[in-house]
Amino acid sequence: MNAPFDPGAGTLVLPQPYLLFLGDTTERGFAKTAFGLRDWARDKCVGELSLPGATVTTGLPQMSSGEAFAAGARALVIGVANSGGIIPANWRASLVEALESGLDIVSGMHVRLTDIPELAETAHLLGRRLIDVRVPPEGLPVGTGRKRSGKRLLTVGTDCALGKKYTALALSRAFAERGLDVDFRATGQTGIMIAGGGIPMDAIISDFEAGAAEILSPDADPDHWDVVEGQGSLAHPAYAGVALGLLHGSQPDVFVLCHEPGRETVLGAPGYTLPSVEEIIELTLLLGRRTNPAIRCGGLAYNTSALDEVEAARLMAQDSERLGLPVADPIRRGPAFDLLIEECLR
Amino acid sequence: MNAPFDPGAGTLVLPQPYLLFLGDTTERGFAKTAFGLRDWARDKCVGELSLPGATVTTGLPQMSSGEAFAAGARALVIGVANSGGIIPANWRASLVEALESGLDIVSGMHVRLTDIPELAETAHLLGRRLIDVRVPPEGLPVGTGRKRSGKRLLTVGTDCALGKKYTALALSRAFAERGLDVDFRATGQTGIMIAGGGIPMDAIISDFEAGAAEILSPDADPDHWDVVEGQGSLAHPAYAGVALGLLHGSQPDVFVLCHEPGRETVLGAPGYTLPSVEEIIELTLLLGRRTNPAIRCGGLAYNTSALDEVEAARLMAQDSERLGLPVADPIRRGPAFDLLIEECLR
Repeated sequence: MNAPFDPGAGTLVLPQPYLLFLGDTTERGFAKTAFGLRDWARDKCVGELSLPGATVTTGLPQMSSGEAFAAGARALVIGVANSGGIIPANWRASLVEALESGLDIVSGMHVRLTDIPELAETAHLLGRRLIDVRVPPEGLPVGTGRKRSGKRLLTVGTDCALGKKYTALALSRAFAERGLDVDFRATGQTGIMIAGGGIPMDAIISDFEAGAAEILSPDADPDHWDVVEGQGSLAHPAYAGVALGLLHGSQPDVFVLCHEPGRETVLGAPGYTLPSVEEIIELTLLLGRRTNPAIRCGGLAYNTSALDEVEAARLMAQDSERLGLPVADPIRRGPAFDLLIEECLR
Repeated sequence: MNAPFDPGAGTLVLPQPYLLFLGDTTERGFAKTAFGLRDWARDKCVGELSLPGATVTTGLPQMSSGEAFAAGARALVIGVANSGGIIPANWRASLVEALESGLDIVSGMHVRLTDIPELAETAHLLGRRLIDVRVPPEGLPVGTGRKRSGKRLLTVGTDCALGKKYTALALSRAFAERGLDVDFRATGQTGIMIAGGGIPMDAIISDFEAGAAEILSPDADPDHWDVVEGQGSLAHPAYAGVALGLLHGSQPDVFVLCHEPGRETVLGAPGYTLPSVEEIIELTLLLGRRTNPAIRCGGLAYNTSALDEVEAARLMAQDSERLGLPVADPIRRGPAFDLLIEECLR
């Protein structure tokens, strides 16, 4: 089934809190979703469930589906991937038991939950939901370009897969810690699970891309912030359209440019030189002005995981000086991250 | 069913020639598809079929489905729309008869042919195809940005619905009349019926938009031209993403900007001023260079249907002077249209 609508907003809304399912995973890297949920939505996770043989743990309390339901859980989230993107036969009894215990199941895997007959039948019989977060809600409108109330921040990138989700989450949390009224608006599957809702922007029919982005960050109080997870890049030969639809529909007041120093070519597009941060700032301002003439750059978020601490600090200071904007690594934090937040909120 | 693949190219390929079905239409405006096919694909149309009460005719020979099949037709095309986008009950016997006569059925209506049980059952029984040209082919790849051989022209616009399809068709025909090897590449449903194939770009999942455009105009001989039908506009708050994906994936050597003088606001987006032609030329060059650094503007195609001939000619001469580019109305033609073609081919 499609994930359910939020009748007020048209976005996906997931049942929460979660029981995190780890299967029999022995590779930490396969449990990225579970760790993401633990780190960014801990108050929405009551515990974890793993099968015999699993060596990976999130450190949350181990519990059965029945215990999780009693503790308030309303959905089991498949928190692991495997190389085939499939749901192995030895997971199925646990998933059926979760449905029988009163939990819905949430998945971001390639395989559809409803394509597994045991799950489809049990869910149908018991009235439980099998929610694939890759499946966008139906009935999305086309964009109107109408200016909405409230404030918006969008993370954009010089490329794909360099920290736009992480940066948006880190900024949302920092805004909340400063007492601001803020929502993280998720546009990809992991983000949607963390937020408990959102729209998978890469799965939308093109004609509805900007309209979906409009729905994702609806009218709000004048002081409310939506921090929107970016997708793609305006310079990516495959995904620039996705990035532009999201930019137009989000109509951000502020954007933060995410970048990985040292990355030289575009992911998946050999021969395409990564654009400079200056180029993407200019392009984002130029195109973003169409739906929000007041758009400005709040600073840059660098993914410096490939650099040692001293090199990273020197590079960020140097680029900050050159650009006249704060540059910070949202994982390493430090004073520059506070400057970035201040500039975004200015 | 989805329309069939061209195994070589991944685009839709329609069975031809056509029998044009007009139903019992009395409103000429409802038969736009039939007239488009008559005007742009006459050699692919063997005749027309209408029901008692119809007053609209394309002037092509009237024939039954059986006569059309004998004359070579391989598909009946529903060449009319009606206000509800439905297929009325009194059309169904004729459509069933077409299937029984050996014809597939091609439709661009909102209703799916396969949702009409009589048609679905008859088609299944006889092995005929019910082809909805709004349904994109499956298995489209993501874009790679790889430069392809051959030459490409894309029509772009200051807005939607101002002549991008017409201009692309007129240029394709003019190129062919000059003896050039040219293909019109269709991106919308009417264009797809005219071309006998193509990809409905507005129905593609965003992540595959540029990849679909790449598939649509594959590697070709160095002197071969693909003339690609544009969609949307880079300045449209709802559809800019579609336009950018198509621009990047088409990697045009030349673009022709379509514009309707006098249109002041963007279609469907009240409050959005139409951009100037200069703005869209600059934006198309800036963004198009990402996948084709040699992109250039070949001139402008004005839709001057709201102006009288003298006004139209004066305006186009004036704008041509200002821009240093040919400006022509592809419907009114005249010497300026030849200049436009020459500049495109330069």
